[in-house]
Amino acid sequence: MRVLSDQLKTHTGRTATVAGWLHKKRAMGGLMFVVLRDRRGLIQVVVQDETEQAKLHGIQNGSVLEVKGAVKDEPRAPAGAEIHDPVVTIVIPVADVPPIEVDKPIDHKPENLDTLFEHRVLNLRNLNERAVFKVQAAAAEALRGYFHRHDFTEIHTPKLLAAATEGGAEVFKLDHFGQTATLAQSPQFYKQMMVGVFERVYEIGPVYRAEPSVTTRHMSEYTSVDAEMGFIEDFQDILDFLSGLLNQVTDEVWKHREADLSALNATRPTLSAKLPQLPLSELHRRFSEATGTDTTKEKDPTPAEERWACQYAAKELGSEAVFITEFPASSMKFYHYRSEHNPEVAERADLLFRGVEIVTASQREHRYDRLVEQLKAAGGDPENPGFRYFLQAFRYGLPPHGGFGLGLERLTQKLVGLNNVKEAALFPRDMSRLAP
Amino acid sequence: MRVLSDQLKTHTGRTATVAGWLHKKRAMGGLMFVVLRDRRGLIQVVVQDETEQAKLHGIQNGSVLEVKGAVKDEPRAPAGAEIHDPVVTIVIPVADVPPIEVDKPIDHKPENLDTLFEHRVLNLRNLNERAVFKVQAAAAEALRGYFHRHDFTEIHTPKLLAAATEGGAEVFKLDHFGQTATLAQSPQFYKQMMVGVFERVYEIGPVYRAEPSVTTRHMSEYTSVDAEMGFIEDFQDILDFLSGLLNQVTDEVWKHREADLSALNATRPTLSAKLPQLPLSELHRRFSEATGTDTTKEKDPTPAEERWACQYAAKELGSEAVFITEFPASSMKFYHYRSEHNPEVAERADLLFRGVEIVTASQREHRYDRLVEQLKAAGGDPENPGFRYFLQAFRYGLPPHGGFGLGLERLTQKLVGLNNVKEAALFPRDMSRLAP
Repeated sequence: MRVLSDQLKTHTGRTATVAGWLHKKRAMGGLMFVVLRDRRGLIQVVVQDETEQAKLHGIQNGSVLEVKGAVKDEPRAPAGAEIHDPVVTIVIPVADVPPIEVDKPIDHKPENLDTLFEHRVLNLRNLNERAVFKVQAAAAEALRGYFHRHDFTEIHTPKLLAAATEGGAEVFKLDHFGQTATLAQSPQFYKQMMVGVFERVYEIGPVYRAEPSVTTRHMSEYTSVDAEMGFIEDFQDILDFLSGLLNQVTDEVWKHREADLSALNATRPTLSAKLPQLPLSELHRRFSEATGTDTTKEKDPTPAEERWACQYAAKELGSEAVFITEFPASSMKFYHYRSEHNPEVAERADLLFRGVEIVTASQREHRYDRLVEQLKAAGGDPENPGFRYFLQAFRYGLPPHGGFGLGLERLTQKLVGLNNVKEAALFPRDMSRLAP
Repeated sequence: MRVLSDQLKTHTGRTATVAGWLHKKRAMGGLMFVVLRDRRGLIQVVVQDETEQAKLHGIQNGSVLEVKGAVKDEPRAPAGAEIHDPVVTIVIPVADVPPIEVDKPIDHKPENLDTLFEHRVLNLRNLNERAVFKVQAAAAEALRGYFHRHDFTEIHTPKLLAAATEGGAEVFKLDHFGQTATLAQSPQFYKQMMVGVFERVYEIGPVYRAEPSVTTRHMSEYTSVDAEMGFIEDFQDILDFLSGLLNQVTDEVWKHREADLSALNATRPTLSAKLPQLPLSELHRRFSEATGTDTTKEKDPTPAEERWACQYAAKELGSEAVFITEFPASSMKFYHYRSEHNPEVAERADLLFRGVEIVTASQREHRYDRLVEQLKAAGGDPENPGFRYFLQAFRYGLPPHGGFGLGLERLTQKLVGLNNVKEAALFPRDMSRLAP
């Protein structure tokens, strides 16, 4: 029966069998110190016997080993115990020196990233890289838990769409048995239509953007956490839901992955229970005053404003995440809901977290006649099949609703403190990278 | 504060506000009986007052209503209680009669399916249709719970691949910034590579098949539950894991969605704790004897054999699910593991459930040199980028491992008893359907 690294200490004084990858080895004063990596952590093995040492000669890092030996307490060993007098079995010998090292933290300088991604298959074996994705998995689990506690139903919507649904140069196109299909940029229409069935739905899945952007914030494929909520009183319900969500995810990730976060030097974000809200016009005004750069004509926060807003919120409002609200109606999407108090404003918000937008949220126009009007005003054709099915849901009754899309990689990036969103994707996709 | 249908009875004797869609209404002896649908079920409202009745004239099914009134015990009402003396608010009036009815079970005759899918946005509001997807969501949650209890890490792998990775006419191709990309048919290579990082991984996400198949079992996009497990003793570990998984999912789905399953007339499957195993040659022999159709030359089970095997297993082996094992090595994929006991046999199994294959599982060849040999023997080029990164994982050490892919829609279909897998997809995609 195999013992995992985090259980080794409980076997002190007994014989145990462990298995894993040769993480590193070094010789010292006639002894050989071997460190194994398994799915929970590291195990140190002290090899004294010459026959056993001989088995390990010429065996490179990455080799798969099974080791049986006596477990001794050793506070300085990574597992709090180590193995002595081992019998070593080489399950899979690795003959070649790996092209990159995986046994020490890697410098994620921008100029190193391409090399890391080229060797991603091995690079991810690094404990710090792995830690990023253990945090990501914990975040996804926390998100699902939060959705389930709020009675959301998980849905799976198609990523292959009739070409007419989403247009423009920003979509990928392909041939689907003679018809042109596009890859979904978001499950937007589907999640709204499903409010009519389940009231509250969420989906965690891939979405696709053909934007030719080379930035630290964009990928051509990413994991989107999408949610939609019916029977809301008003847009504040969505913002309150998101405040609870970010707090809950932070709590659970720090509860379950503290060792990983600590290895990554991640600092737990300060978040207020209700995340602060800053109207866009106020952000423009404050930013322009503070920096001398006039942004008051911008329809969206600029990247510099996103960073500034988070610094401002952390310092003045006690939260490293802040909503930017009250976007101008002049640049709203046809399905956005115009504020009842101010028709110049759309009920949309961006949630900024540590300098980057991680969520876009909005209330949706749920009244069929107004939605058709807004679609036409935006130049859309209600008879286009991409809109026709969507409009059907409204024609036959949808309640007030709203929702959001959250980028799982951006959330991970900001929780653990990475510079580039691609570092939070197992196998990032961008303009120049389709492999591995 | 809105009261949901399943909580209504606890408010008996008090005033409550409910909200939902007008599901149906009928007049009887001066009274109007209104049934509302919310995300948990149905609520009956008895409208006596003429002013209140007048509000509902000309209001069609699907209209969104809010109703405040007195809650009275009523065992015959769907919620065990109903609302009297209501004040009705029409939140969203629906003026047109919906093109399909959603208030009674729908006949899923094959010739009706296209009409249902054309009106899927509304068809899913039918409680029986909705029940299918509540079961599916519960199944996905049970699967994740099972994976987490067994220390699997959830991963998200790219669906956009360099064209060389997967070939043939069965893949969708698209332009990705000047490079040809294909859509993943499965996360096969990625999950195997990630064994080197996490040992045990799973992913629930979309996969794509460009096969021009018009059957009740195929879609061009479906949700695949993929898992891979390292440090196995042998292939039996994978089959044992799957036995536990199907039993656990069945238990949890029947525990959490009993009312939905009952509405769908679903019968709980009989499953043995360890699902029985039938070598393919034995299936061929028994099937040929029983039916007179000689299948002994087939390399896979035929659809007729899949149905027969499940009937046989249910009758003779006490299980509605059965593994077909010991596939001929002559038709194995290059990454399959050849049996150590019999080199003519590959360590692969199909899990058949109620007449259909829902899982394909195999042990993988984990030894670099043999894998390269098998790849070359199958005509593959180890220097092809699609294989190069994959092989890197093996060259630098992977332990014995195996895994499987399970179709979430097929599992749902067989749990609830549908004839066509497309009925278990919210928005199915096939040769002729890209919308809604």
